[in-house]
Amino acid sequence: MNSFGRIFRISLFGESHGEGVGIAVDGCPAGLRLAAEDFSGDLKRRQSGARGTTGRQEADHPLIWSGLRKQTTTGMPIMIFIKNKNVRSRDYDPLRYFPRPGHADFVAWHKFGGFHDSRGGGQFSGRMTVALVAAGVIAKKILGKVRIRAALIEVGGSRDITKTVNQALREGDSIGGLVECRAEGIPVGLGEPFFDTAESLLSHLVFAIPGVKGIEFGSGFACSRMTGSQCNDVILSRSGRTKTNHAGGIHGGLTNGNELVFRVAFKPPASIPKEQDTIHVLTGKSAKIRIRGRHDACLALRTPVIVEAVTAIVLADLMLLEQKIPRVLE
Amino acid sequence: MNSFGRIFRISLFGESHGEGVGIAVDGCPAGLRLAAEDFSGDLKRRQSGARGTTGRQEADHPLIWSGLRKQTTTGMPIMIFIKNKNVRSRDYDPLRYFPRPGHADFVAWHKFGGFHDSRGGGQFSGRMTVALVAAGVIAKKILGKVRIRAALIEVGGSRDITKTVNQALREGDSIGGLVECRAEGIPVGLGEPFFDTAESLLSHLVFAIPGVKGIEFGSGFACSRMTGSQCNDVILSRSGRTKTNHAGGIHGGLTNGNELVFRVAFKPPASIPKEQDTIHVLTGKSAKIRIRGRHDACLALRTPVIVEAVTAIVLADLMLLEQKIPRVLE
Amino acid sequence: MNSFGRIFRISLFGESHGEGVGIAVDGCPAGLRLAAEDFSGDLKRRQSGARGTTGRQEADHPLIWSGLRKQTTTGMPIMIFIKNKNVRSRDYDPLRYFPRPGHADFVAWHKFGGFHDSRGGGQFSGRMTVALVAAGVIAKKILGKVRIRAALIEVGGSRDITKTVNQALREGDSIGGLVECRAEGIPVGLGEPFFDTAESLLSHLVFAIPGVKGIEFGSGFACSRMTGSQCNDVILSRSGRTKTNHAGGIHGGLTNGNELVFRVAFKPPASIPKEQDTIHVLTGKSAKIRIRGRHDACLALRTPVIVEAVTAIVLADLMLLEQKIPRVLE
Amino acid sequence: MNSFGRIFRISLFGESHGEGVGIAVDGCPAGLRLAAEDFSGDLKRRQSGARGTTGRQEADHPLIWSGLRKQTTTGMPIMIFIKNKNVRSRDYDPLRYFPRPGHADFVAWHKFGGFHDSRGGGQFSGRMTVALVAAGVIAKKILGKVRIRAALIEVGGSRDITKTVNQALREGDSIGGLVECRAEGIPVGLGEPFFDTAESLLSHLVFAIPGVKGIEFGSGFACSRMTGSQCNDVILSRSGRTKTNHAGGIHGGLTNGNELVFRVAFKPPASIPKEQDTIHVLTGKSAKIRIRGRHDACLALRTPVIVEAVTAIVLADLMLLEQKIPRVLE
Repeated sequence: MNSFGRIFRISLFGESHGEGVGIAVDGCPAGLRLAAEDFSGDLKRRQSGARGTTGRQEADHPLIWSGLRKQTTTGMPIMIFIKNKNVRSRDYDPLRYFPRPGHADFVAWHKFGGFHDSRGGGQFSGRMTVALVAAGVIAKKILGKVRIRAALIEVGGSRDITKTVNQALREGDSIGGLVECRAEGIPVGLGEPFFDTAESLLSHLVFAIPGVKGIEFGSGFACSRMTGSQCNDVILSRSGRTKTNHAGGIHGGLTNGNELVFRVAFKPPASIPKEQDTIHVLTGKSAKIRIRGRHDACLALRTPVIVEAVTAIVLADLMLLEQKIPRVLE
Repeated sequence: MNSFGRIFRISLFGESHGEGVGIAVDGCPAGLRLAAEDFSGDLKRRQSGARGTTGRQEADHPLIWSGLRKQTTTGMPIMIFIKNKNVRSRDYDPLRYFPRPGHADFVAWHKFGGFHDSRGGGQFSGRMTVALVAAGVIAKKILGKVRIRAALIEVGGSRDITKTVNQALREGDSIGGLVECRAEGIPVGLGEPFFDTAESLLSHLVFAIPGVKGIEFGSGFACSRMTGSQCNDVILSRSGRTKTNHAGGIHGGLTNGNELVFRVAFKPPASIPKEQDTIHVLTGKSAKIRIRGRHDACLALRTPVIVEAVTAIVLADLMLLEQKIPRVLE
Repeated sequence: MNSFGRIFRISLFGESHGEGVGIAVDGCPAGLRLAAEDFSGDLKRRQSGARGTTGRQEADHPLIWSGLRKQTTTGMPIMIFIKNKNVRSRDYDPLRYFPRPGHADFVAWHKFGGFHDSRGGGQFSGRMTVALVAAGVIAKKILGKVRIRAALIEVGGSRDITKTVNQALREGDSIGGLVECRAEGIPVGLGEPFFDTAESLLSHLVFAIPGVKGIEFGSGFACSRMTGSQCNDVILSRSGRTKTNHAGGIHGGLTNGNELVFRVAFKPPASIPKEQDTIHVLTGKSAKIRIRGRHDACLALRTPVIVEAVTAIVLADLMLLEQKIPRVLE
Repeated sequence: MNSFGRIFRISLFGESHGEGVGIAVDGCPAGLRLAAEDFSGDLKRRQSGARGTTGRQEADHPLIWSGLRKQTTTGMPIMIFIKNKNVRSRDYDPLRYFPRPGHADFVAWHKFGGFHDSRGGGQFSGRMTVALVAAGVIAKKILGKVRIRAALIEVGGSRDITKTVNQALREGDSIGGLVECRAEGIPVGLGEPFFDTAESLLSHLVFAIPGVKGIEFGSGFACSRMTGSQCNDVILSRSGRTKTNHAGGIHGGLTNGNELVFRVAFKPPASIPKEQDTIHVLTGKSAKIRIRGRHDACLALRTPVIVEAVTAIVLADLMLLEQKIPRVLE
């Protein structure tokens, strides 16, 4: 299902090399001031341009086709469409029958009987996330005092990010990374005990971002190595402030009012210039491929704002459900 | 929402110290042979009894109240109820106004205005998972040739599990652990590109299990430290078999036919005999607590079968959606 | 799917001649006072006993197995189970291969490959509605000042209800009826323009009641014979009070603050003592059947409270969505 | 929620006088041949032009922005956008504070705090249905041998449709109508016992069409005046063919293989040239209005194809759920 959310609900469509990418945002309160300029900051943060990102550069101008009047939301679905312009689909012709290792090519071929749009990865492409970022802008605006900030904290296991990216580029290779997201100002009690815990919903949407292979909240995997007396966060005040934050701001699946903290592991992008082995998808014969197209050597460079966006989308939905955000804003 | 799934759909209810715990399994195909005995193996695996698990022992006899006739599913919701018998709620009286560090007590108090059933953790309790395991038994049966197996691979960071648990017990403390789940025989193409990737759905349900703080698929967090040429799984055959399995059997969010592999980090249980600091929830005054009740020192010992259950539930749902399992079994 | 609702969400299970019938009510606010006695009034209104209703009489004592503590809702799913006691399944043995005309027997056989529980109509039975009525009691309580009242206004096309029922009984036949439901005190603006209009949601749940073949809001079918100047309801005040109420309290799919009015057509029950033609479901050979069991000659006599219940359930869900009911009641 | 369906799932957006109207169709099988020309027949049937329909004429050219490659569906969401061109929003300026009797103006004002796009009725407009018809075209194509046909059978209570419409036009008034829909070739067993009966789902979506005030299946309201021996449809063959069809092809909420038959009552359009009474929405002062805009005097003339569309959408969803349509077409 290409939709997510219960009240603040997004529906995604589009392909990497099709007409464009779009998202319908349903359930946004009426009365929110919203202009095309509001999107530019976050869309720019997601764009390529830095060393280690794809040579494909898109203007990413969001067209808002519904749900807005006089720069104010009407309470109806907000449809945002972002055209694809800088497309070079011919790069993908040689790949049609040769699935890229580590990519969705093979599974897409099987699931859709060969009818899938394979150009640029179709709907499996990181290109799709431009629409998530746009929806995130709206979510952030209705979240009010909640502040979300994600950052790339490691590339290829190193904190010297520039050096690591350059080395991957030199070797015709790509590199993974680690993104940390923090959010403050979240009320106590967002999420449901079973099955819609804050962690369940956040991880659900985080794993929709292409390239994610792991997520951990608070001290995460390190918690599995702790004792209870080390890991338990002692409560200091009636507002729920804790001494430590091993839980990452979530107890029993519900937000506890402390800073929300989680980390996301991005694998290296699958498309690399280096020669690789694969097979012909129909005959099964071994083959060598070199992927030409334009690709990110380090996708993680562009992902912090995407992680922020999905966080904002989940929080907006939960706050509407808990009636912490009204259906009509003044 | 206390429901999960699109076709094979579960709804959970109950509390740790209430009448019992139950689950309704909707969308199960008709014609499946099912008897009370089918549940005993997995329910036993989840039970306490081993050193390091709670002193509360429950018979866990599943009462099947609908959806079955002549030991065969009818196609209607299967309602399973498991009574609570070995309950000692008085253990919780002293805790009523003193939230346990690391536990849901504080957030539950806020979310439900003090009306929450706090005895034994109410619906936040690990007790709830007995119903997930029961639903997992049904899911496993309809999965046919798919084999799922989870195991505890680390406790407190160590592979010497017995020793580590004993040490925690001696110190009046608890300890976390790491569970690995593997599944074979999964068809290519389960999951949807956005937003219902196999990873999204699995993590959604895994984070419903109390105590989970992290999940990673395949090489997971280690992928963030790799290059593409290291991490990409080269395809060897038309069936999609790969040379390595860094992806854990999922490419582009869809199963790729290789072994599904993921690891789950469990934090140490919050309830420990050791004295801890907390506050009075109404006055905010500092206090010391000693938790008496009966609790798991190492919950992770009992969780592999729960992780299997949620895996089976997600796979059953996806296979019904992809028409890999018929609506009526012969 | 045996669930309905977005926030106030019900999940139904059980069979007519199985262990019993149950419903899980998810999303009910915490802090609502609720006792077993609260159910007795509405459950009694649904019971048989009157002339023209089935000889099967059930005590209908609701067992509440979760979600309640000290007679107050906890915010967690409320599971209500009502046992079947007065069951005479042998009445159904002769019918196993002979589908009753007008009944679900034939379609159930096909859909569930013969595995369906055919005793007493299984989950197609009017017996299931006892659980809807129980959920309706909870919904009514949280609706506060909204008052819902349904009544049987016609039987067999006549307002002399006693006479018409007696005649049907004399002839070994059954008879249909018309139920009208009215609700006052509803706020303006419940429902969504597309696709969750108040009419869409109400009709969705009304058609879940066995035997319903039609629904109309306000002047309904008569509107199709009117002109706009006759049918338009002129607004008289800022609160939205209208001069006429041809719309039945719903404009553009949203409640308009006037009385909600709709009528529901119930067909005559399919099970009648009179001899009828049918076929053998496997061989296709013609046959004659006489249905012995115990059945309602006029089901509509028992349905007003069921129509009220589904109305309350829909309104409770919409009012929670619109934040007209808080998540925690004081 | 502006989405509907479980597998074949539609999401609607747009406004009458905004950029246009669009629909995303999710869950459509891959491999379906689809061209812009496929839409022209049904879109034309919905268009105005006949006497009694609005003077606003739109080309209704469907732009397909995703989910299609080489005129074949890819298995991904199909996004269809239809631009608004022939818009005269100034007609609505005088109406801003004066809600039209019988229209959504008043409720929209309240629900959305005055932020709603009131031009042309915004998302409450019949204009929205152009997107439903487009989605219906896709649904019809995947339904294969199922044939759906709706027709206007009465206008203003009369079968002389031309005469009745002309009279309404002469009087500066509008008129209601009755649409009957029939579908053949439907397999036995579509729908679920509770709560997703075929009648529940069809009525849910039918009541999304603006102007609908009633629906009845088979003999519908007439069933409430029948006896069981009159109303029961005797089964004649193993395939389920019945002698009569009072049930309209649905028994126990499931399709029974006979012709699906239902009728839909459309009220007269609210916007009429005749002078009408209303109030100022802020001050509550009485006022007279004359509605200029361009409106249908008899909306029902344009609705049969819309009723067909929603029927096709519901049937496609149920057939995918029952695995009667594969996920990849050959």
